[in-house]
Amino acid sequence: MTGPRVATAADVRLELRAADLCAALSDPVIESATFLNEISSRHPTAISLAAGRPYDGFFDPGQITGLVDEYVRHLRDEGLDDAAVTRHLFQYGRTAGHIHELVARTVANDTGLVVDPASVVVVTGAQEGMFITARALCAGPDDVLLVPTPCYIGMLGAASLLDITVVGVPEGPGGLRPADVAATAARVRAAGRTPRALYVVPNFANPSGHTMSAPDRAALLAVAREQRLILVEDDPYGFLAAPEDRLPALKALDTTGHVVHIGTFAKTCFPGARVGYVIADQTVRTGDGRRTLLADQLGLIRSMITVNTSAIAQAVIGGMLVRSGCRLDTVNRDRIRFYRDNMRHLLDRLTAEFPPDRRADHGVSWHAPAGGFFVVLDLPFPADEELLARSAADYQVLWTPMSYFYAGGGGSHQLRLACSALPPEQITEGVRRLARLVRDRNATAGPDHVAASAAANQTAAAAAADRGGTP
Amino acid sequence: MTGPRVATAADVRLELRAADLCAALSDPVIESATFLNEISSRHPTAISLAAGRPYDGFFDPGQITGLVDEYVRHLRDEGLDDAAVTRHLFQYGRTAGHIHELVARTVANDTGLVVDPASVVVVTGAQEGMFITARALCAGPDDVLLVPTPCYIGMLGAASLLDITVVGVPEGPGGLRPADVAATAARVRAAGRTPRALYVVPNFANPSGHTMSAPDRAALLAVAREQRLILVEDDPYGFLAAPEDRLPALKALDTTGHVVHIGTFAKTCFPGARVGYVIADQTVRTGDGRRTLLADQLGLIRSMITVNTSAIAQAVIGGMLVRSGCRLDTVNRDRIRFYRDNMRHLLDRLTAEFPPDRRADHGVSWHAPAGGFFVVLDLPFPADEELLARSAADYQVLWTPMSYFYAGGGGSHQLRLACSALPPEQITEGVRRLARLVRDRNATAGPDHVAASAAANQTAAAAAADRGGTP
Repeated sequence: MTGPRVATAADVRLELRAADLCAALSDPVIESATFLNEISSRHPTAISLAAGRPYDGFFDPGQITGLVDEYVRHLRDEGLDDAAVTRHLFQYGRTAGHIHELVARTVANDTGLVVDPASVVVVTGAQEGMFITARALCAGPDDVLLVPTPCYIGMLGAASLLDITVVGVPEGPGGLRPADVAATAARVRAAGRTPRALYVVPNFANPSGHTMSAPDRAALLAVAREQRLILVEDDPYGFLAAPEDRLPALKALDTTGHVVHIGTFAKTCFPGARVGYVIADQTVRTGDGRRTLLADQLGLIRSMITVNTSAIAQAVIGGMLVRSGCRLDTVNRDRIRFYRDNMRHLLDRLTAEFPPDRRADHGVSWHAPAGGFFVVLDLPFPADEELLARSAADYQVLWTPMSYFYAGGGGSHQLRLACSALPPEQITEGVRRLARLVRDRNATAGPDHVAASAAANQTAAAAAADRGGTP
Repeated sequence: MTGPRVATAADVRLELRAADLCAALSDPVIESATFLNEISSRHPTAISLAAGRPYDGFFDPGQITGLVDEYVRHLRDEGLDDAAVTRHLFQYGRTAGHIHELVARTVANDTGLVVDPASVVVVTGAQEGMFITARALCAGPDDVLLVPTPCYIGMLGAASLLDITVVGVPEGPGGLRPADVAATAARVRAAGRTPRALYVVPNFANPSGHTMSAPDRAALLAVAREQRLILVEDDPYGFLAAPEDRLPALKALDTTGHVVHIGTFAKTCFPGARVGYVIADQTVRTGDGRRTLLADQLGLIRSMITVNTSAIAQAVIGGMLVRSGCRLDTVNRDRIRFYRDNMRHLLDRLTAEFPPDRRADHGVSWHAPAGGFFVVLDLPFPADEELLARSAADYQVLWTPMSYFYAGGGGSHQLRLACSALPPEQITEGVRRLARLVRDRNATAGPDHVAASAAANQTAAAAAADRGGTP
C-alpha cells in the first residue's frame, strides 16, 4: 500500500475559522470549561476547590475484575447460556441498555421510587440523558427549555449544541420557586413560544447547593400540570441527604406523568464508567395511533448518538449493583458520611475564616446548604477569570466563577466551592488560601470599597431576582 | 421518607403526541430500526442476513479481566503511580480520551497513516464521531452535508437529529464519483446554500459494498479543495482488504487538511466496548486569534454529550491494543480471513441459487464487492416491509430493505445482505431460503411480470442516478 504523501510547498493547508463552526463552540458556557482546564493544568499543585468530582480514595483498580465476574455470574443465575453472556458483553445489544432491571431495583430500594424497568433507558452518563431528553422534548424553533438560574453547565451546553432556546428562572434560597416557574412559563407563552420542559435539580443543586422543600415539590408538580410542562428532574446528589431528611423525588410524587427522572452512577459508583439512566414512563401516541413509551423514543434518539452504553461499563456497574444487593445506600454509608463531613468541615472553615461578627470587614457571605458538594460565596469584588488566574498563580487555590453558570449574564461577584474531591485537611488549607486572597484583595481596594461593593452586590442580586424569566 | 403517592381517578395521565416531539423521531430513517428490531424479535430463530454485526465466535468473556490488567501494566510502564492509575480508570478524565497515543500508534502500524496523538479524539463509537463532526462542521441553517446515496443509516440519523440538511450524491459501481460530488456541491452553492462536508466510506461501503479506486480518491481530494469541502471519511471496513489490495485512506493522501477520519474498534475489537476515534488535525482560528485543533473543538462538543468515553471501555480496548503490540492487523488475521471467506461464500451461494444464464427467469442481480460485510441485490419486485415480514414468517430469513438507506426515496426493489454475523453453513441456508422466497414471489407474478419488473427496476435505477443531487 502507498504511504502518506509528503507535503509540498504547493499544498496550502486549510484553516477553519471558529465562526464557521457550530455556534455553540463560541458559547461562553462551553468555552468556560477550557479556561478552567487550562488553569488547572498550569497549576497542577494548586488545591482545587473547583473540582466537583468524587473523592479518589473510594476507588480501587483491583475491584474491576471482580465486578465483571460478579455480573457474569448474575447473568448465568438469570438463565443466560454462554452464547448469550458473550453477546451481552461484546455485541451492540439493546439500545436502552441491559442493566435496566438492576437499575430499577436499586432505585426502588434506595429511594422508594418504583418504576417499570421498560421505562428505564441506560445512558452514557447523566449528560447523555439530559442531551437526549432535551432533544426529544424541544422539537421546534419556538420550543423553550426553562432552566434554573444559575444552572448546571452540562444542561446549558447540551441546549446550546441543540440550538434550543433556554429561559432562566431565578432560584430562591430554597431552590426554584413554583410561582416563579409558573410566571416564567406564562410569560414565555404570552411571547408566542412554548415552554416545553423545566430542568430541575431538587436536591443540593449544582451550583447553588439549594434543596427544594416538600411543599415546593408538590406545588411545582401542580405548576407542571397547569402549564403543561415536563419536569426534567436530575438527581445526582439526593443520596447524600441524611435518611431522616430525605424528601421524595419529584418522580415519586408524579402521578400524571409530568416528570422525566435522570440519575447517575457517577457519584454512587464512579464517574469513569459513564453510566447513568433516564426514567421516562410517559406514553407517546404516534402518528399512526400506536402507543409507545417515551423511553422507547429516547432509545431511538440515543441509537443515533452513541448506539448504546458501553456493555463493559454496564457490566462493571451491574456488578456493583449485584454486589450491593441493589442497595447502593447501604454499601455507600462510608462514602456518604465522608461527603457530609466534608461539607460540614467546609462550612466550619468558612465561618472560622470569615466570622459573622466581622462581616463588614470581609464582605463575604454564603447560604449554607444542608449537604451536597457545593457552596456559593458572595464576594465584594468580581470573581472573574482574571482573579481566578491570580488565585491559582499567587495563592495556589482554584474555584469556579459563578458567571459560568449564568447563560444570560450574572453571578459576577460569586464563586463556587466544591468539597467532594479533597480530604478535610486540604479543604482547611484551601479555605485558608482563599481567605488570604480575599483579605489581600480587600486591602488593595480599601474598607469603604468593601462595604460599597457588598451593598452593590446585594442590589445586583435583588435585581437579578427581579428580572425573573430573562435568560 | 415518603413513598410514591398512589394514583387516584382524579389524576389524568399526560399523553405526549409524537408530533410534539423532535421531528427526527418521525423520520423514516430512524423509525426503520424499530421495524427491523421488532421483526427480529418476533422471529428469533430466523436466519439473519440483516445483521451487520461481527461474528460472536471471536469473543470470549474470559478475556476481559486480563485486558484491564494489561492496560494497567501499560500505565505503570509509562510511569504512572497508583493514584494516577486510579484516576485514569475511575475519574472523569481527559475529554478526548486517554488511549489516544495507543490509537495513533495502531493506526500508523496498521494503515501507514501517521498522525499526532493530539489530533485524536477517542469517542463513544464511530457513531458519536459522526454526530460531533457533523455538529461542528454544519453550523447554520444553510449549511449542507453531502452524503452518498445510498448512505449508512447512522449518518442520516445523526444529521436528522441535528436538523442538518443532507443532499445525496448517487454512488456509481466504484463508489462516489468525484465529478458527481463536484456537480452536486456546485448545485447546492448555486441554490444559495453552503456544502460544508461530504460523508464518505471509501472501503466496502455500508450498504452498497462499493470501494473507491485510487484515482477516484485523488480526484475526490482535488474536488474537496476546489469546493472547500471537508471529507468526513468513515472507515470501519478497510481492515478487511487483502494487504495487496489496500488503498491509502483519504486521510493518508490529505496534505491540505481537508479530511476528518473516523475509525472504530467495533469490528477489529468488539462493538460492545463503544470505542471509536476521530482524527481531526485541522487548525481552527478562534475569534480572538488563537489557533486550536479541530480535535479540541470536537472534544468540547462531546463534553456536552457524553463527557467522555467510558474509562473502563478505554482500558479494555487499550489492553487489546497493548497486547497486539499496536498491530491489530496481525492479531486479527483469522478474523479477516473468516470475513473474507464469508463474503466469497455468500457470493458463491448467490451465483449458485441465481445462475447468470437464468437471469431472465429470476430477475435478480448484484454487484459483487471485493470484500466487506454487505451485498446489495436488485429484485424484480419491491423489497418492502411487507415482504420482509412475510420473509421472516414464512421463510425464516431476514434481510434489510435498501429503502432504509435512501433519505429521499429510492432502493424500493433492492435489499441488503450481510455476511458478517453467521457461520458459512447458515449463509448457505439463508441464501437458499431467500431464493425460495424469490422463486415463489416470481411464480405468483408470472414470468412476464418478472421481465417487465426487472426492466422497470433498471429504468428506475437509471432515473435515480440522473436525479443526482436530489436528497
